[in-house]
Amino acid sequence: MPLHKFDFPKHISMSMKTLKEVKTSCYLIFKGILALFMLIFGLNPVAFAQNNILVFQSDFGLKDGAVSAMKGVATSVSPNLKMYDVTHEIPAFNIWEASYRLVQTAPYWPAGTVFVSVVDPGVGTDRKSVVMKSRSGHYFVTPDNGTLTLVAEQLGIQEVREIDEAVNRRKDSNESYTFHGRDVYAFTAARLAANVITMDQVGKKLDNQVVSIPYQKAVFENGQLRGSISILDVQYGNVWTNINKKLFNRLNVKLGEDVRVQVFNKNEKIYEGKVRYVNTFGEVKEGADVGYFNSLLNFSLGINMGSFSEKYKVSSGGEWRVVLTK
Amino acid sequence: MPLHKFDFPKHISMSMKTLKEVKTSCYLIFKGILALFMLIFGLNPVAFAQNNILVFQSDFGLKDGAVSAMKGVATSVSPNLKMYDVTHEIPAFNIWEASYRLVQTAPYWPAGTVFVSVVDPGVGTDRKSVVMKSRSGHYFVTPDNGTLTLVAEQLGIQEVREIDEAVNRRKDSNESYTFHGRDVYAFTAARLAANVITMDQVGKKLDNQVVSIPYQKAVFENGQLRGSISILDVQYGNVWTNINKKLFNRLNVKLGEDVRVQVFNKNEKIYEGKVRYVNTFGEVKEGADVGYFNSLLNFSLGINMGSFSEKYKVSSGGEWRVVLTK
Amino acid sequence: MPLHKFDFPKHISMSMKTLKEVKTSCYLIFKGILALFMLIFGLNPVAFAQNNILVFQSDFGLKDGAVSAMKGVATSVSPNLKMYDVTHEIPAFNIWEASYRLVQTAPYWPAGTVFVSVVDPGVGTDRKSVVMKSRSGHYFVTPDNGTLTLVAEQLGIQEVREIDEAVNRRKDSNESYTFHGRDVYAFTAARLAANVITMDQVGKKLDNQVVSIPYQKAVFENGQLRGSISILDVQYGNVWTNINKKLFNRLNVKLGEDVRVQVFNKNEKIYEGKVRYVNTFGEVKEGADVGYFNSLLNFSLGINMGSFSEKYKVSSGGEWRVVLTK
Repeated sequence: MPLHKFDFPKHISMSMKTLKEVKTSCYLIFKGILALFMLIFGLNPVAFAQNNILVFQSDFGLKDGAVSAMKGVATSVSPNLKMYDVTHEIPAFNIWEASYRLVQTAPYWPAGTVFVSVVDPGVGTDRKSVVMKSRSGHYFVTPDNGTLTLVAEQLGIQEVREIDEAVNRRKDSNESYTFHGRDVYAFTAARLAANVITMDQVGKKLDNQVVSIPYQKAVFENGQLRGSISILDVQYGNVWTNINKKLFNRLNVKLGEDVRVQVFNKNEKIYEGKVRYVNTFGEVKEGADVGYFNSLLNFSLGINMGSFSEKYKVSSGGEWRVVLTK
Repeated sequence: MPLHKFDFPKHISMSMKTLKEVKTSCYLIFKGILALFMLIFGLNPVAFAQNNILVFQSDFGLKDGAVSAMKGVATSVSPNLKMYDVTHEIPAFNIWEASYRLVQTAPYWPAGTVFVSVVDPGVGTDRKSVVMKSRSGHYFVTPDNGTLTLVAEQLGIQEVREIDEAVNRRKDSNESYTFHGRDVYAFTAARLAANVITMDQVGKKLDNQVVSIPYQKAVFENGQLRGSISILDVQYGNVWTNINKKLFNRLNVKLGEDVRVQVFNKNEKIYEGKVRYVNTFGEVKEGADVGYFNSLLNFSLGINMGSFSEKYKVSSGGEWRVVLTK
Repeated sequence: MPLHKFDFPKHISMSMKTLKEVKTSCYLIFKGILALFMLIFGLNPVAFAQNNILVFQSDFGLKDGAVSAMKGVATSVSPNLKMYDVTHEIPAFNIWEASYRLVQTAPYWPAGTVFVSVVDPGVGTDRKSVVMKSRSGHYFVTPDNGTLTLVAEQLGIQEVREIDEAVNRRKDSNESYTFHGRDVYAFTAARLAANVITMDQVGKKLDNQVVSIPYQKAVFENGQLRGSISILDVQYGNVWTNINKKLFNRLNVKLGEDVRVQVFNKNEKIYEGKVRYVNTFGEVKEGADVGYFNSLLNFSLGINMGSFSEKYKVSSGGEWRVVLTK
């Protein structure tokens, strides 16, 4: 601590040199106090890998006390954590959607943010509990069951470690077999976010790979764009594909022109139609189908003031495919 | 306080003038440190218009990552923001309800609080993006599409500015046409709440008026009270009118007495009946209709342990009217 | 910056004694500043009973502005509070479930945390408004209508005080009869959590007892385990009993063996079957009934990848009983 350096001269009559030393001492006190506060309040983002920000995701819903128990455990680790949520309304056991929601939101949070995602149909089986650090500097604490598919692919894998439950497990939780979300994931994530442990202290380092869910990548072949339906924009009923703008441009469809769309579930054709390619829904009349780029800049299908997914019974996931032609 | 123990030695071979100067210096150090902390932690409500408190509202729901992306952007602006929500369950595109929820809650938050409301059926059209400061000292960041109707009317307009998107727009968001909530509204609101920008820096000053949704004002005429149905208390099925207590008193109905109620949707009569005017639902038997003053002190209709709006199929908005007679 | 004004006198003659005194003075200033900050930021958990953490629960839902108004009032009391939620989706007026959610979550929060629970079918009747401090050091601010049943029983009663509404009521709220959640409970809880008032200042001390909802306790008699169904794990459809592991062990059923289960609603038998006693759902095939210990270490019934409560139409509360035999 700089404070220890605070030491007045043993003898003074007081010369200008001494005076300067007094000044210096005062400066050191000041610096010491500042350092102390930075330590306490985590104002120094350079000194620490993590930033006291903890973001939760699960399929627990908000009707019971599960999410609150997780946040209570995290608060017990450190009351200085700032806790937020992606969503707790992931459909039960839907790992694909868990993966999607993470990649949809993580890039908008500062590097150092710790995400904890608990969608865990295999709780108690041999799926590993891991922390993945992405190349973007985000941390993901989760069962390694496919939840990391899209963040690994899009943000890159910096490091993966298996959580050592001998150390990183809430005290007095040994007899409890079923709430890993609270006793292992929230506990470890909170300790990581609050700098109680470093990434090294999570557990042993694994290879830089995670369990991945297969799905059709977006490609341009024979004048056709092929891709999958990543997710539904559930609130508005829009359908989001994995076809980005750069790839779409190879179709040479201009704003205001139509694009021909086919949607398949496995091999069954669910929808076929022409949609207007627009910037905003307001450009077409109410009830008209549109194609547009969503906030992630992926090609999406919607209906002005309506629900595309409900009207045409379209859903999302690896088994849903879309084909676009001019 | 340990500070009271601060007491310079009674005798020193130091001139009183010098002593005073040392004292002064120490005082200045103390004041400097205090000022620094006030700067860092925003403890000085006088120095700053805003207070680091940011409250979100939208029709996005909580099932996807949209709200989380907005909060991530705000956290990236400043990790010291304290973020809360009004609701994200505004029915899709329902501007009236957005307006109502703001006026229902804003007065209970401290002056300086920044609200961001994103219910935006006209996204991408020519509706303006604005910040309105109310006379009550609250800030509202929103598309100017009617969302400000009730806060403008009830809290008063202090100043309106159009958001200059050349400056107040998240970096790297230029290609994204559809998520203004994240890239413009949350970003600008966070910068305003965290004092990164002042109200002046939002953009050009507009006239002190906003887009307003027409609705029937509460009036007393010919022995009748007329008003509209402001909102449903959705959780309990109660029906809230815009008739306040002072106006109601002109009917001369006393607590425990009945009041005759008619409810119209445009010109169709939906409900007619006598309801007991009570302080609390417990005063009537289960299943009985009651009239009471809600927490905003507006006349409301309910059923003890039941749902008035469901039983009589009554809803809210400008086209719903209510007539009360003795 | 005031720091620039820091300027020691250019000439002084100062003895060693004086020097030591200056040192002491500087130390005292430092200590004073530190104490001041501890006061401001609540860093000293020993000095204060409460910890600035406030956790809300209600049956208000999240569709309107009620929860936000409560948090606005709390923020107005102190912007330094950290606010979280158990749930606001308690079924309307369901006091049993309010009681259950509190005991399910409170133990995971640090001592000193203040909970405010507003499920209040008797609002305006003569139920008392109280603060209960548990032996575990948690505070519960609530109407005394049965909400405290389980925390009183399981965490123990340290002290109960009736809220003196003459003092502990939001200013300007006298005419409002119906929103005690905001004007009394949130207001008092915030003042308590922020150390604006002490427990003594809540109001007059009551006897150490609260209103309790009757239900069947877990017992082992004549080779049978009898208990009640505490709650449904709504998200997954699991059924949680009040039979703990120690009591269950008296049946001498080992992991992997079957246990015979009967479920009654009052005297009607709703379910009878054998379920496998497992650690994790993954140990049985999809669709199979299982018995397991939940995260609270109580015996529970579920279906692997299914909903026990929906399939067999089983619900929770005092009138539901379960009988287990080998």
